[in-house]
Amino acid sequence: MAANTWGELFRVTTFGESHGAALGAVIDGCPPGVELSEADIQPFLDRRKPGQNRFTTARREADAVRILSGVFEGKTTGAPIGLLIENTDQRSKDYSEIKDKFRPGHADYTYAHKYGHRDYRGGGRSSARETAMRVAAGAIAQKYLAEQFSMVFHAGVVQIGPHATSPEHNDFDWLRVADDPLFCPDAQMSLAAQDYLKQLLKEGDSVGARVRLEVTGVPVGLGEPVFDRLDADLAKALMSINAVKAVSIGDGFAVAAQRGSEHRDALTPDGFTSNHAGGVLGGISSGQPLIAEVAFKPTSSITIAGDTIDKYGQPCSIVTRGRHDPCVGIRGVPVVEAMAALVVMDHLLRHRAQNGQVKHNFPVL
Amino acid sequence: MAANTWGELFRVTTFGESHGAALGAVIDGCPPGVELSEADIQPFLDRRKPGQNRFTTARREADAVRILSGVFEGKTTGAPIGLLIENTDQRSKDYSEIKDKFRPGHADYTYAHKYGHRDYRGGGRSSARETAMRVAAGAIAQKYLAEQFSMVFHAGVVQIGPHATSPEHNDFDWLRVADDPLFCPDAQMSLAAQDYLKQLLKEGDSVGARVRLEVTGVPVGLGEPVFDRLDADLAKALMSINAVKAVSIGDGFAVAAQRGSEHRDALTPDGFTSNHAGGVLGGISSGQPLIAEVAFKPTSSITIAGDTIDKYGQPCSIVTRGRHDPCVGIRGVPVVEAMAALVVMDHLLRHRAQNGQVKHNFPVL
Amino acid sequence: MAANTWGELFRVTTFGESHGAALGAVIDGCPPGVELSEADIQPFLDRRKPGQNRFTTARREADAVRILSGVFEGKTTGAPIGLLIENTDQRSKDYSEIKDKFRPGHADYTYAHKYGHRDYRGGGRSSARETAMRVAAGAIAQKYLAEQFSMVFHAGVVQIGPHATSPEHNDFDWLRVADDPLFCPDAQMSLAAQDYLKQLLKEGDSVGARVRLEVTGVPVGLGEPVFDRLDADLAKALMSINAVKAVSIGDGFAVAAQRGSEHRDALTPDGFTSNHAGGVLGGISSGQPLIAEVAFKPTSSITIAGDTIDKYGQPCSIVTRGRHDPCVGIRGVPVVEAMAALVVMDHLLRHRAQNGQVKHNFPVL
Amino acid sequence: MAANTWGELFRVTTFGESHGAALGAVIDGCPPGVELSEADIQPFLDRRKPGQNRFTTARREADAVRILSGVFEGKTTGAPIGLLIENTDQRSKDYSEIKDKFRPGHADYTYAHKYGHRDYRGGGRSSARETAMRVAAGAIAQKYLAEQFSMVFHAGVVQIGPHATSPEHNDFDWLRVADDPLFCPDAQMSLAAQDYLKQLLKEGDSVGARVRLEVTGVPVGLGEPVFDRLDADLAKALMSINAVKAVSIGDGFAVAAQRGSEHRDALTPDGFTSNHAGGVLGGISSGQPLIAEVAFKPTSSITIAGDTIDKYGQPCSIVTRGRHDPCVGIRGVPVVEAMAALVVMDHLLRHRAQNGQVKHNFPVL
Repeated sequence: MAANTWGELFRVTTFGESHGAALGAVIDGCPPGVELSEADIQPFLDRRKPGQNRFTTARREADAVRILSGVFEGKTTGAPIGLLIENTDQRSKDYSEIKDKFRPGHADYTYAHKYGHRDYRGGGRSSARETAMRVAAGAIAQKYLAEQFSMVFHAGVVQIGPHATSPEHNDFDWLRVADDPLFCPDAQMSLAAQDYLKQLLKEGDSVGARVRLEVTGVPVGLGEPVFDRLDADLAKALMSINAVKAVSIGDGFAVAAQRGSEHRDALTPDGFTSNHAGGVLGGISSGQPLIAEVAFKPTSSITIAGDTIDKYGQPCSIVTRGRHDPCVGIRGVPVVEAMAALVVMDHLLRHRAQNGQVKHNFPVL
Repeated sequence: MAANTWGELFRVTTFGESHGAALGAVIDGCPPGVELSEADIQPFLDRRKPGQNRFTTARREADAVRILSGVFEGKTTGAPIGLLIENTDQRSKDYSEIKDKFRPGHADYTYAHKYGHRDYRGGGRSSARETAMRVAAGAIAQKYLAEQFSMVFHAGVVQIGPHATSPEHNDFDWLRVADDPLFCPDAQMSLAAQDYLKQLLKEGDSVGARVRLEVTGVPVGLGEPVFDRLDADLAKALMSINAVKAVSIGDGFAVAAQRGSEHRDALTPDGFTSNHAGGVLGGISSGQPLIAEVAFKPTSSITIAGDTIDKYGQPCSIVTRGRHDPCVGIRGVPVVEAMAALVVMDHLLRHRAQNGQVKHNFPVL
Repeated sequence: MAANTWGELFRVTTFGESHGAALGAVIDGCPPGVELSEADIQPFLDRRKPGQNRFTTARREADAVRILSGVFEGKTTGAPIGLLIENTDQRSKDYSEIKDKFRPGHADYTYAHKYGHRDYRGGGRSSARETAMRVAAGAIAQKYLAEQFSMVFHAGVVQIGPHATSPEHNDFDWLRVADDPLFCPDAQMSLAAQDYLKQLLKEGDSVGARVRLEVTGVPVGLGEPVFDRLDADLAKALMSINAVKAVSIGDGFAVAAQRGSEHRDALTPDGFTSNHAGGVLGGISSGQPLIAEVAFKPTSSITIAGDTIDKYGQPCSIVTRGRHDPCVGIRGVPVVEAMAALVVMDHLLRHRAQNGQVKHNFPVL
Repeated sequence: MAANTWGELFRVTTFGESHGAALGAVIDGCPPGVELSEADIQPFLDRRKPGQNRFTTARREADAVRILSGVFEGKTTGAPIGLLIENTDQRSKDYSEIKDKFRPGHADYTYAHKYGHRDYRGGGRSSARETAMRVAAGAIAQKYLAEQFSMVFHAGVVQIGPHATSPEHNDFDWLRVADDPLFCPDAQMSLAAQDYLKQLLKEGDSVGARVRLEVTGVPVGLGEPVFDRLDADLAKALMSINAVKAVSIGDGFAVAAQRGSEHRDALTPDGFTSNHAGGVLGGISSGQPLIAEVAFKPTSSITIAGDTIDKYGQPCSIVTRGRHDPCVGIRGVPVVEAMAALVVMDHLLRHRAQNGQVKHNFPVL
């Protein structure tokens, strides 16, 4: 792993700024012989791309991906796969208002002090636009895992402000996420949250969100204790997404109030009887569904004025006009899926290296 | 990084099983010239070691650490530092009762299926005993960071079952943690939780816990976007601790209900006016205190019988007698500090490599 | 490091096949604030590019590099630098003659058996064309090292078949390399070798070469024992160049016949009195010039028929017509420089992480 | 990889100084289920250990290795394997003569300037004593590769000063190496070289050596282009051994004078007809024997006085009395084998991760 590379064996290196010439990625370590074309990746990018509806940023990007290498005669060759998306809507605009000010809640301040300079064009590398390449790379992993293990990645928004749902709700249905404008698995919650977001848009404010992930078909045995546990790498992967502030596995923070007799999942000859653990025991997948949740903070790019300082240290006020999402968690959904797929794919290859092939179903030694 | 190695530049590799001959660690990449002896490390190990009081496991280990290399004439040389703790209380006992059974909630099942064999001696590598070496390595990082940056690492138990506290409470005081049997910063909560734990011990049950971390003195600029963000690496480090099921930074899951106008921390010439972000913006430290919380699950080693299967797939019942903590979160406190120190130390060196020295205080460009 | 990534801290990831859409690289970890534009990189690529004279392949590529990210307002930002070269002369041709045959001396056979497939279009990823991106990345390192340390990278062909030279020769002059068609530092050797190559071209054969490297200005202290020694990483870097079969440091294989009293370089208050060691002691740079030599094998792509087998295991004969260099070592010269620059740059950052700034000149403690 | 860690998937981390308390290693990533005990490792250490005969250092070390973890009931568990050798002959002596002087040809000078301090006790980490742990770790790899692939590692001294041999010599026999005091495969050369060494010992001088390596049974397909080629990693592994100054693969530097029609190895249905390539094509093993040679410099620790400076920069003279080998290349033989085994083992696991199982014999697609 490294700053802009995810993974030890299925390695994804990304580059590109929100207002630069292009975004790109290199995927190194992909198994050879996987059928792959741009058409396999584009639908995943289309789900994430801006300008889909009134609840996401008005920026319009085709986000058309090109495969530059690593595929020959329709199949991966084992060589690194180069991906490229040219930026087309780098709206030239007047940055003079924000150029010298640190936007509160943004990475302006920390990037400026870390690197000693500032890319004031809408976030540069710290923009959520960077996640497009995570989704493109994740699409390749998801394709492989679906084909080889029938693995299914579900993610959806389960909370926006005061509106929430959970799998226990009658209306909860993973299959409706794809068609919901908020990527929400619960129709009732979605309608209520849409009203709430419309009001926020009027007020020029934003709101946070909680996203739930469930992955089925994960074989038993993935994870490399003691540090590279499957849940630890998943926590890092999800926390590395812009705006994420918390990650839980299985019952998450609720375990602080649980008793051992309540938490431990009993085993029977037919499998586990519950999944408080969220599919991971001792850092290794148990074969149960992998369950995680993450919290996205509300974007700080709002039209309500805020207090800040400029680069000379002087106090000032700032309004962020740009084209921004009122709830960045929504477009975070495909990114959550993508990062989970990259984690599982990497661990699959790592397991294979040391231990040989994984087993597909509930095994007894 | 690798399975049993933490860090890219300040690299800690650990080995050893709970009932094996010894635990050990190699620290590679430590700056030369740091004054170091066993006496600098032992107090950290003593805080974590078992047998301290009735609320922690009755196993008795001296946990006496030896420095085998990397120190000459009282200072680190830049060569790898070898650390060793001989296990002294590997009680020889009769494992026949649990040898063939998978303990529910434990890593038995997943280790067995991953590696194709089973070390039934009390958890082997998956035992919390492994964390002793994290604490030893973390002690070296904490010493360096304290000396060079006056950095202070605070951690304490802020929830056990129904009993909780927070920094807003009048009684909350980091300085009392060291002397509290539960490593709790709040005297009132501690007393209530001690009563609760006594009752649990009678019932043969266990309970989860929530631990809070605050680090002051972290310089601005640490973190390597887009993947190796400071918060992402901290999330991985904390989630890699045995029994941890959730990690939050700053306001954590509460951000899902917050508005942008509420969440963003205003900047003034005198610093930030709040710290909802928990000291990280865009994956890079802001110079504010680094704040995180983690949830420890209740240990599954309890004397209440549970359903499980044996290695032939047959259903059976199990009781875990061993010597176990009723609330593993308590002894997790020094481990949380240690992992945070390893993360910050590693990022300090990484920052230095690309960008030169860090700045110590609130800077204006 | 990883298959297609060079470096631990100055990380270069490359992709692209000789007959694919494009070649690309991502440089991650470059210090911020370095002035950089395409004009800084292009001259290095122009030296390596094909079609320069009759002694290099007739393929014509503009090799025009684009910087896609990581540079803002003329300076590096600390974000990953994306580089791209579109392939323009992917001559569409009839591969039917070689498609099913393994070319002797080529990577066809091993790639086919490793990855289970074959990219028969002129070598795919195993083509020397891949080295263009090494040169582009190396150009950035060379610029930084020249600006910060006045470091100078010299490389030149010192042997082609029976014609050789050495720094002891009167005519030996690093400054003439840039203008010599064989990148040879010795005018006499160059003329003799040119005649030799003309004869080889007539015969349809090829020849090997030896290239010498000298780097001045390397500060004392670079190298990370015991495995990542400066000379060990240099050996790997140079051996990773297509066609290289041997690497030596300082006196190289001659040391097997030397005595200790002869080999050891004496120190005086004014510096070392000789440089048998080649600028490295114990895997760490001594401040003396870094000296290495490499041997390039003769390309196997010749018009003299050779025996081989096809993919069905049947014996057959093959003639490689393509557009190939009679002596690949010539165009290897800028690649040798580039790889040396990547090694030194990476070690500079690694040293800085653990030990702080390097010293510039002959120091006494 | 990292300073004191070799390998990406079969990772060996070593620590310990020549005159410290102990030497140690951690092997992380070893496949589970390998039968292993100290008795499997000790014979390899015994070959390398000092004090075997008059041609190696008089220091006496039992070099008794202990396995501290990672093995349970006689088999590896997949957990990290901790190895330890206590130093027993750290002769306490008077260092006052050399304490402040830089020994010419040694790493004193560079270590002092890199780390800002000096461990004057006989080399500290830069001593050849460090290689004991390479041999111990290599023994585990050699055992696995022998059992799984019938792989055989041969290495021997083929040149000492003016005395040399090669596989073409009638007397050349790998099987005699184990019993030869110089680890030489040629009886005639060995006798001549023994006389030569006796004379050197009288003169208080030392001499270099050349060591040849041949590995049979390497499956086709190992190596990770474009940077982590099998030959590139082998070059690094061998160059990282103390005193090695050159590495060649196959015909090595001789290729600079070869023609393509002569160098390329023809393929037939029965295999290759020659092995100029040394078993590697395009950085990937061809299934032929892997062939390499390395040159060891003469040790600079001799009793002939040499010119140097002290740490104050003043000129002085030095005589190195200690207990040193007149020809360090001899004891380098098992280290060469060990490093080759670590390289092949690591690449085997890396291949398996991306491509699945390797093939055992000459295959046709």
